[in-house]
Amino acid sequence: MEGREPLVVSVARLAGVTREQFLRDIYPQRKPVVLKGMELGTCTTKWTVDYLSKAEGSKEVKIHVSMVPQMDFLSKNFVYRTLPFDAFVQRAAEVKHKEYFLSEDIADIRKQFPILAEDVQIPEYFEKEQFFSSVFRISSAGLQLWTHYDVMDNFLIQVTGRKRVVLYSPRDAPYLYLSGTKSEVLDVDNPDLEKYPLFVKAKRYQCFLEAGDVLFIPALWFHNVISEDFGVALNVFWKHLPAESYDKSDTYGNKDPTAASRAMQILDRALKTLEELPEEYRDFYARRMVLRIQEKAYRNDYG
Amino acid sequence: MEGREPLVVSVARLAGVTREQFLRDIYPQRKPVVLKGMELGTCTTKWTVDYLSKAEGSKEVKIHVSMVPQMDFLSKNFVYRTLPFDAFVQRAAEVKHKEYFLSEDIADIRKQFPILAEDVQIPEYFEKEQFFSSVFRISSAGLQLWTHYDVMDNFLIQVTGRKRVVLYSPRDAPYLYLSGTKSEVLDVDNPDLEKYPLFVKAKRYQCFLEAGDVLFIPALWFHNVISEDFGVALNVFWKHLPAESYDKSDTYGNKDPTAASRAMQILDRALKTLEELPEEYRDFYARRMVLRIQEKAYRNDYG
Repeated sequence: MEGREPLVVSVARLAGVTREQFLRDIYPQRKPVVLKGMELGTCTTKWTVDYLSKAEGSKEVKIHVSMVPQMDFLSKNFVYRTLPFDAFVQRAAEVKHKEYFLSEDIADIRKQFPILAEDVQIPEYFEKEQFFSSVFRISSAGLQLWTHYDVMDNFLIQVTGRKRVVLYSPRDAPYLYLSGTKSEVLDVDNPDLEKYPLFVKAKRYQCFLEAGDVLFIPALWFHNVISEDFGVALNVFWKHLPAESYDKSDTYGNKDPTAASRAMQILDRALKTLEELPEEYRDFYARRMVLRIQEKAYRNDYG
Repeated sequence: MEGREPLVVSVARLAGVTREQFLRDIYPQRKPVVLKGMELGTCTTKWTVDYLSKAEGSKEVKIHVSMVPQMDFLSKNFVYRTLPFDAFVQRAAEVKHKEYFLSEDIADIRKQFPILAEDVQIPEYFEKEQFFSSVFRISSAGLQLWTHYDVMDNFLIQVTGRKRVVLYSPRDAPYLYLSGTKSEVLDVDNPDLEKYPLFVKAKRYQCFLEAGDVLFIPALWFHNVISEDFGVALNVFWKHLPAESYDKSDTYGNKDPTAASRAMQILDRALKTLEELPEEYRDFYARRMVLRIQEKAYRNDYG
């Protein structure tokens, strides 16, 4: 029996963190943190709706469009569309809207949006070889993205607008009803506890990002993002594991490391073997398998 | 969070159960039950210390000898010895003893002790092909055997003397700190809860067997046995699964079915693969493996 957890844990907010402090004191803790007052370049003042729509012209971009603010990967209540960048920015920025917009993941801002890229100074905490992608995100006010994890370390740079980010530790995975890398609990504020009773056990971390804030989201940490205003952000993904650990075909930074995928496939063979036994025995040996995993692979330094 | 369980559940006691009733109403429930008033032959009256020591003479038998009543497979506080049967019976029956005796498992009373076998009528509920072994057990007063499970269905026929048997359901395996088929919690009456905190969650079933009682212990049910007096009992093991499911080299009925052993070996390969990842990732994907097992192989009709 566990004690009752506090309802919400605020993510730590730190100002004026140097590269050295980050690498020595913050990064090894593998916990999210909001970095305030980082030097991000001219983007924080320059990127108005007007400037954005003019800067990169009418080049085509792929986007998610939804009639409701809460995107739902289960019911697929959104469609993928292609729009000219200037029209997309204008429509996503409308205060009263019938549709909600989110730009699709785009691999490298420097290649796709070279003009805008000049306005941004990406914090470079790691080695160049660790860089994976820089994803430029524009989203409508009110838009909510489902809870998911990425396998890369992520710096969420909030350039303009505000976001609320809710996070969960990787060790709370058992309470999040996962489907792949996503949680089936779509509404983290009003979860359906009949359907997801264990969700109350997940410890909720939360922060509000203002323009100019940078949120460090360690690999495997679950995050759910609401855009409180129309806003522009940049997700910069970095490799945390040796390069060869990652799936070569991964473009979005959300495919499990190859060793993990292989382990899961091998496990499926073990479960297939257990199917030869009647339910009573299958249940018993499944429980013994769980004990073996907990004994051999769970870390024991978690609080 | 689970509610507080009652401290002890009494094992059901049923008198005058016919073969048909047993097979139709009791056996399919896969729960332990004490059968009273069974027809067991002349053994219940004939098997005095005097008769026993004379009946089979001085043939050698293998036994466990311990200086303390609670046998401990962890510290190995017992030794294996060979004694003439008549001497063994006499010494095990001594009221005041410095040593505790338990006969070793012997495969078939009809072969090892043909004279005594004539006095027993083994309840034959199953087909002849399902018979596995009949183990003749003599134990000193006070002797306690560690909590363990067998992979065969077991009829514990208490011929003379009394026993207290404590049982746990297979689904409580996670609370029993298993080492192979045995629980490391040796003292079920005064468990070390600092060391074994989850043990309190195991639901304790209990019964007291009088001479003439038969306890049905379904395969996989954990049992811990204290002999309250010097006594003689017969364990009759029967196959519950198809014959090919069992390990051919199993002489004691406690080797896991081959499909279960194979599944566990395959799991070990999956865990070996996870070792390529750092602890943080290993823990995360181990938790996901556990969720997969629970989803795919746990039965969901348990109360």
